[in-house]
Amino acid sequence: IKSKLPNTGDTIFSVMSALAAEHNAINLSQGFPDFETDPVLLDLVNKYMHRGLNQYAPMPGVPELRQVVSDMVQRQTGHSYNPENEVTITHGATEAIAAAISCCVREGDEVIIFTPAYDCYAPMVELNGGTPIFVQLEFPNYNINWDIFKKQMTHRTKLIIINTPHNPSATLISKEDLVQLQEIVEGTNMLILSDEVYENIVFDGNEHHSASSFPALAERSFKIGSFGKSLHVTGWKLGYCAAPAQLMAEFRKVHQYMVFAVNTPMQYAIAEYLQHQERLEISAMYEGKRNTFLKAIEGSGFKPLPSKGTYFQLLDYSAISDKNEVEFAKELTTKHFVASIPMSVFYHIPQEHHVLRFCFAKNEETLHKAGSLLKNIG
Amino acid sequence: IKSKLPNTGDTIFSVMSALAAEHNAINLSQGFPDFETDPVLLDLVNKYMHRGLNQYAPMPGVPELRQVVSDMVQRQTGHSYNPENEVTITHGATEAIAAAISCCVREGDEVIIFTPAYDCYAPMVELNGGTPIFVQLEFPNYNINWDIFKKQMTHRTKLIIINTPHNPSATLISKEDLVQLQEIVEGTNMLILSDEVYENIVFDGNEHHSASSFPALAERSFKIGSFGKSLHVTGWKLGYCAAPAQLMAEFRKVHQYMVFAVNTPMQYAIAEYLQHQERLEISAMYEGKRNTFLKAIEGSGFKPLPSKGTYFQLLDYSAISDKNEVEFAKELTTKHFVASIPMSVFYHIPQEHHVLRFCFAKNEETLHKAGSLLKNIG
Ligand SMILES: CSCCC(=O)C(=O)O
Ligand SMILES: CSCCC(=O)C(=O)O
Repeated sequence: IKSKLPNTGDTIFSVMSALAAEHNAINLSQGFPDFETDPVLLDLVNKYMHRGLNQYAPMPGVPELRQVVSDMVQRQTGHSYNPENEVTITHGATEAIAAAISCCVREGDEVIIFTPAYDCYAPMVELNGGTPIFVQLEFPNYNINWDIFKKQMTHRTKLIIINTPHNPSATLISKEDLVQLQEIVEGTNMLILSDEVYENIVFDGNEHHSASSFPALAERSFKIGSFGKSLHVTGWKLGYCAAPAQLMAEFRKVHQYMVFAVNTPMQYAIAEYLQHQERLEISAMYEGKRNTFLKAIEGSGFKPLPSKGTYFQLLDYSAISDKNEVEFAKELTTKHFVASIPMSVFYHIPQEHHVLRFCFAKNEETLHKAGSLLKNIG
Repeated sequence: IKSKLPNTGDTIFSVMSALAAEHNAINLSQGFPDFETDPVLLDLVNKYMHRGLNQYAPMPGVPELRQVVSDMVQRQTGHSYNPENEVTITHGATEAIAAAISCCVREGDEVIIFTPAYDCYAPMVELNGGTPIFVQLEFPNYNINWDIFKKQMTHRTKLIIINTPHNPSATLISKEDLVQLQEIVEGTNMLILSDEVYENIVFDGNEHHSASSFPALAERSFKIGSFGKSLHVTGWKLGYCAAPAQLMAEFRKVHQYMVFAVNTPMQYAIAEYLQHQERLEISAMYEGKRNTFLKAIEGSGFKPLPSKGTYFQLLDYSAISDKNEVEFAKELTTKHFVASIPMSVFYHIPQEHHVLRFCFAKNEETLHKAGSLLKNIG
C-alpha cells in the first residue's frame, strides 16, 4: 500500500506527551486542561444517559444544541445562522475542519495556510488532492503580510484558512486584517475556513474578531468552534461548524458519511448547560493562569512573547541555548522535566527562532512547579 | 460551490425517521434499539467522567480498550492483532469505514461494492476520486455470484467491500464465499474492507465468518466493528478497526486528521465493562425479538425472507400491493403507522422486488403493536 500521506509521522503532540510521561515531566506540550470539569455538566451527561438518550442523534446534531450555538454566535458576531440548515454539531473541531476542507477542495485546488499552523490543515488538503500554499506570518509579531499573501493567490486558490485566536502563536487577527481579507476575496469564488476554537479565550481587554462579523466574509466562511476547549472537555470531542446554507449543505454531505452523527447524551448535556449562559466567561480564568505562569518564570532565562489569547505562552530561549528547537524541547523534557512544543514543527519549512510553546491550561500548582524547574536552567 | 457529492440527498434513514415522527408511526426504519442500555455501563461512564478522564484520549484509542478488542477478535477469528499498532478505536464504524476507504483509494481506483449495500460506502469512494463498481447479490437469496464478480474485476480494482452479517439483507457470508474470495485475491494487491458491525448478532445456530479467520484475507483486510451495535448505544459512536500493521499505519494517519481521537470516558467505561466478558452474548436476545416479530405478523399478507443475522427482517409485500417500494414504504408509514426502509434505496440502480426492511431491535410491546398494524393491511 502506497501512502496517501507520506509525510505524516507520529504527531508531535503524541510524541511530546509520551516523552513527558516516560520522564515524569510536567506536560505543557499538548494543549489540554489538567483541572476539573464542572460537575454540573458531568451530572447532566449522566442524567441524559439514564433517561435513555443513547441512540443516534440527528445527523446535523440535536436541535437544542444547534439553537444554543446559533444564539451564542449571534451574540458574538451579530451574524445570524439558522440552526435548521446553517449549524452542524461535529466530532470536535478536527472533524469540522476535515469535513469543511473535504467538501470543497478538489484535485488541483490551492489552499492558503498561514504558518506557523496547527498540524491538521495541510494533510487534509493533500488527502483531497489539493495543494497547500504556505504564507508565513512575520516573526516575532506573527502579523499577516498582505502583500506576500496577495502574491500567493492564484486563480486556483479555493480556500483560505485563518485561525484566531491563533494556535500556536497566541496572537489575534485584527479587525483591519479582516477588512483587508474582505477586500481581497470580494468578487472572487474563494472560500474561508475560520478556525475559532479559542474564541472564548482572549486577554487584556482585547476582543475576538470573527470572520462572521463581516457579511462579505460570513457569506463564504465555515466558522468552526470547540466545546472541548470552551468547557474543558477536550476528550468529549464535540465542536461545531456554522456556515451559510449552501455551504452547509455540502458540509453535511461529508459529515454524514465521515461520522454520520455525534455523541447524543453529551450533546443534550451541553445544550442544557449552556442554555442559560449569555456567553462563556473563561477569559479571566485563563488570563489568571497566564499571569501565574509568567510570574513563575520571572527571573529565568526565558523571554515571553505576548500571549493575547488561546491557552498557550511562547517563550524565547535564545539567552539560554543555541540548540535547535526540537533538540532543546527534548532536552527540556528529559533533563529538566518540563515538556513543551517546538514552534518549528508548525512550519512547512522549519524556522529556527528559538521559541517553544507552553500550555498554561493547568492548575496553579503545576504552573508553579513548571516555573521553578524553568528557573533552574541556564 | 460545486458539489463533490452531487448525488447525495437526505439520507433515507433521516427521511423515514422524520416521516415516522411526523405521523406518530412505529419506527422500524433506521436501525437502532429502543430498549434500555445496561445501567452498569452507564454508571461506568459516570465514574470515569467524575474521575476526571475528560481530556484527549491517545490518538489510536485507550490501550485498555484496544486490548479488549484484540482479545475478543482473537477468540472470534483465531487471528491475533497487536493492540499497539493493529487496532484503532474509532468514532463509530462509519468513521472507520471512511478512514479505511480514504487511506487507500485514489483518483482512478475502482472499489467493488455488493448491492444492496449500506449507504456510506459509495460516497466515500467517490469523495476520494475512486469509482464504485456495483455487483448485485442474487435475489431472493442475496448470494454472491462469483462469476459476475470476477467479470467486474480489473487491474484498477483497489478495494473490495464485504459486509457480514449483511445489512440490509440479513444474510451471512459463507465459509465457501470467503475461501473463494481468498483464491481470487491471492497474489494481487487488492485490499478488503470487511464491515462486521453485526458480528455479534447471528441466529439459528449459524456462525459468523470473519475475513480475519483466513490468513490470506486477514493480511489485506480492514476488519470493522461497532460497540454501538453490540452494546445498544448507537448514539455513543464508538467502533473499531483492526488491520495488519502496515495498513493500520495508513489508517491512523487519516484517523488522526479526520477526528484525532474519540470519546475518552466512554472508551474507559466500555473497556472495563467488556474486560471480563468472553464474548458478547446478544444473539439469543435478538433471535427472540426476531421470532416475536415473525409471530406478530403471522397471518398478515407479508412474507418474511430468512433473517440469519443483524437486527433486520425483510418482508415481501407482493401479495398486498404492486406499488413500488418507496411509495409503499411511505404509505405504510403515513396510513398504517409502521415505518420501514424500502430495499430499492440500497441499490445503485433501484431494483423493485417489493421488499421492505424492518428493524426488530425493539421492545416486545413495540413489536406486537407493529405486528397488529401490519396484519390489518391488504
Ligand atoms: C489534538 S492534540 C493537540 C491539542 C492542541 O490543540 C494543541 O496542543 O495545539
Ligand atoms: C446511521 S443511521 C442508519 C442505521 C443503520 O445502520 C441502518 O438503519 O442500516
